[in-house]
Amino acid sequence: MEDEVPENSRILVSSRKQTDFDNTVETIKNAFKKFMLKNEFNAKSFSDFEKYIVPVLVDVADYSKGWQELKTQFEGRESIPRIFYLAIIPSIYGDCCENIDKAALVTEDSRVVVEKPIGYDQESAEAINQKIAQHFQEEQIYRIDHYLGKETVQNLLALRFSNSLFEQFWDSKSIDHIQISINEKVGLEGRAGFYDGAGAMRDMVQNHLLQLLGLVAMESPNKMGANNIRTEKIKVLQALRPITGDAVKRYTVRGQYVAGNIDNKLEQGYLEELGCGHSQTETFVAIRANIDNWRWAKVPFYIRTGKRLKRRSAEIVIQFKDVSHNAFDDEAGQLVPNRLIIQLQPEERMQLLLMAKDMTQLKTILKPVKLDLNFTESSKGFKSFGYKRLLLDAIAGNASLFIHRDEGSAAWHWVDPIIDYWKENNVVPFLYRAGTWGPSEADDLLSKDKREWIDIEA
Amino acid sequence: MEDEVPENSRILVSSRKQTDFDNTVETIKNAFKKFMLKNEFNAKSFSDFEKYIVPVLVDVADYSKGWQELKTQFEGRESIPRIFYLAIIPSIYGDCCENIDKAALVTEDSRVVVEKPIGYDQESAEAINQKIAQHFQEEQIYRIDHYLGKETVQNLLALRFSNSLFEQFWDSKSIDHIQISINEKVGLEGRAGFYDGAGAMRDMVQNHLLQLLGLVAMESPNKMGANNIRTEKIKVLQALRPITGDAVKRYTVRGQYVAGNIDNKLEQGYLEELGCGHSQTETFVAIRANIDNWRWAKVPFYIRTGKRLKRRSAEIVIQFKDVSHNAFDDEAGQLVPNRLIIQLQPEERMQLLLMAKDMTQLKTILKPVKLDLNFTESSKGFKSFGYKRLLLDAIAGNASLFIHRDEGSAAWHWVDPIIDYWKENNVVPFLYRAGTWGPSEADDLLSKDKREWIDIEA
Repeated sequence: MEDEVPENSRILVSSRKQTDFDNTVETIKNAFKKFMLKNEFNAKSFSDFEKYIVPVLVDVADYSKGWQELKTQFEGRESIPRIFYLAIIPSIYGDCCENIDKAALVTEDSRVVVEKPIGYDQESAEAINQKIAQHFQEEQIYRIDHYLGKETVQNLLALRFSNSLFEQFWDSKSIDHIQISINEKVGLEGRAGFYDGAGAMRDMVQNHLLQLLGLVAMESPNKMGANNIRTEKIKVLQALRPITGDAVKRYTVRGQYVAGNIDNKLEQGYLEELGCGHSQTETFVAIRANIDNWRWAKVPFYIRTGKRLKRRSAEIVIQFKDVSHNAFDDEAGQLVPNRLIIQLQPEERMQLLLMAKDMTQLKTILKPVKLDLNFTESSKGFKSFGYKRLLLDAIAGNASLFIHRDEGSAAWHWVDPIIDYWKENNVVPFLYRAGTWGPSEADDLLSKDKREWIDIEA
Repeated sequence: MEDEVPENSRILVSSRKQTDFDNTVETIKNAFKKFMLKNEFNAKSFSDFEKYIVPVLVDVADYSKGWQELKTQFEGRESIPRIFYLAIIPSIYGDCCENIDKAALVTEDSRVVVEKPIGYDQESAEAINQKIAQHFQEEQIYRIDHYLGKETVQNLLALRFSNSLFEQFWDSKSIDHIQISINEKVGLEGRAGFYDGAGAMRDMVQNHLLQLLGLVAMESPNKMGANNIRTEKIKVLQALRPITGDAVKRYTVRGQYVAGNIDNKLEQGYLEELGCGHSQTETFVAIRANIDNWRWAKVPFYIRTGKRLKRRSAEIVIQFKDVSHNAFDDEAGQLVPNRLIIQLQPEERMQLLLMAKDMTQLKTILKPVKLDLNFTESSKGFKSFGYKRLLLDAIAGNASLFIHRDEGSAAWHWVDPIIDYWKENNVVPFLYRAGTWGPSEADDLLSKDKREWIDIEA
């Protein structure tokens, strides 16, 4: 795919500061060296590639600064798709789009790529979307979520819709419940200011977790086209049962970490890291969600995310129901119901848990066996980063893995009342030690239902 | 389990000839050395074991020869289960059982183990069974089929009935068809006299293939007990749609091998091996069978077996249906429907074929991947031979894997009319070269249904 860049294409790299502008090529070269796979960087290839890079000195938010020069770069390239990738703070998305429009750069084959956070709640998100929409059609707006760029997420769709063995099973008749977790080991990583104003619910649940939930739970689309998939995801998000009033206390858990050991190293608590004595921002959320449609009636979706947890991992666990009837005698042992694990981090892999006979014994003793599909291994040196595939998709005009305005809106519509309730009722986060799996209340959320979080490494 | 032999137990080894009698322990010792796994034979253990061996000189068919001496060996051992393993030609099963009875050796806790061929057709089988039944209750008669002793066959039951993912799928709604093959590379192996009078239908189909079919197709038993399982197998065999009249030509294929290369070695044809110019005995059979019950309506079972084929293999292939709807575009490639392979030979393993995304490409290209459950590997040095487990089962009084009289009877009831039709209508076997997969007519049997034999190594 990298070889398919048309000769006349250019990568315009904007800088606001003169020094950044001067060092553009060097900066890119260093990044290539740092982030490419071992031995993948090749000086000859880079010098071939370098000719595509055009540094431009421009203030994207101020039309008086550099836009005329920028404009000239587009001349003679009218037939090439234009991808405006706004790697800037969301508050200037609007101004930047306005300037692009003012410079008459928006062709029919132009797209704008933006990232979270788009807003702080439904209202602020709508305001930003509204501004962008004044200059670009919805079909031209590519809202990125790098979790959706993971190969395993692609493969989730492939697996569901190209295997009768799975898709026929993908409903409340066969599935007991679903768990979606994004567990981080890191703390604030220098994002303190932003993070403390947002919290895990806005930073992770509203986007990544609900996006994964949408893909897992959606109906089978007529086609695998962008609009078909997004339409189905929107339907799922719209079918999320609202959690309001007292239900918020029953079905959601907020947490905040205090100091604790991770990998034998003492990590600071959230407040110490923040450097301020008081904050009620949640660094952990667990929710029991329900989707009110035919397919998912009575199937709970347990979602959780947190910082400074025991391990870094992201996974979707599909827990199937018990067999209808256990015909084996007690000696055969306990039957563990089937389970499909879709792991996104730290490795990309899928694992199917089945019961089989213990082959080291003559008696029929049943034990769980794990069938592995390890993509990190099987892709043999080929590495697709989420961003790489998503930006290539944007260039190719494939919006399947980008977020439609209505999806973001439906997600906020579900998330906002929970956050509001927490605030209005002063719901204080439960404390958890760094290096654990979050507050014990998150376990209670499942144990009330006679279930438990599945530790896939256990 | 080997350590659990009660101190007072004995293994009485009968010989008719004085020299065999004299060499009994030596013969057993040599067999241990030959057939045990590398380094498994241990002189110390054998000398511990040796004390259980009691050679007896007896003609099992003639009560005047040695039975009194044999009888004394049982004295003082009334409380120990008695297993009479008749490793003798079936024509003297009756006489032998009569003598056991005459010697008053049949206690309540006695069992007799017999092997195929029990008869030549329904009538002769009934005659043998009738004779044995005069001296043993049906619950005491253990008819052995060593294919049922294979671990993978045990695991087929475990897999079906301990995984909701499989058992819910095990019917005509999800399964397109099932293939059961036992392919041999060997020829007559010195069994010419017997084999030419029997043929593949009696030697393989009536017992091994129909037994495997019974296990694959049976309803879920209430319990995994012997009677429950055998009751379900009988129901399957009784539900086999009779193949009679012209249907025999449409749904069965007889074959006989002629000279051809196997592994670059020219092998003789059947007639040369037989050393006689004329025989219409089949060395290959392929059949399209149907089971007339609710679960298997319209699901064909293709079974085949043959000698001097391309490879030695025995396997059951569960071919699932296509996905209901292919939502992927043409670029994604052809969807291969899911498949579960249960291989009994040369290795014991199961393989699940799924579709997944090709992880070496950014575009969604789907390709089949194989999830392997290799039991030969995973059992790490533990080796269960079919006979070992079956004889231990007989000792333990577990008859689940033995064949009930009614099963044999139902199998003959289905097989006999086919053999009769072949004979009455002089259906000449199609010729096939040694080293192929049998006559092309066996392929036509499936291609008429737009299907093909699945070569699992391909």
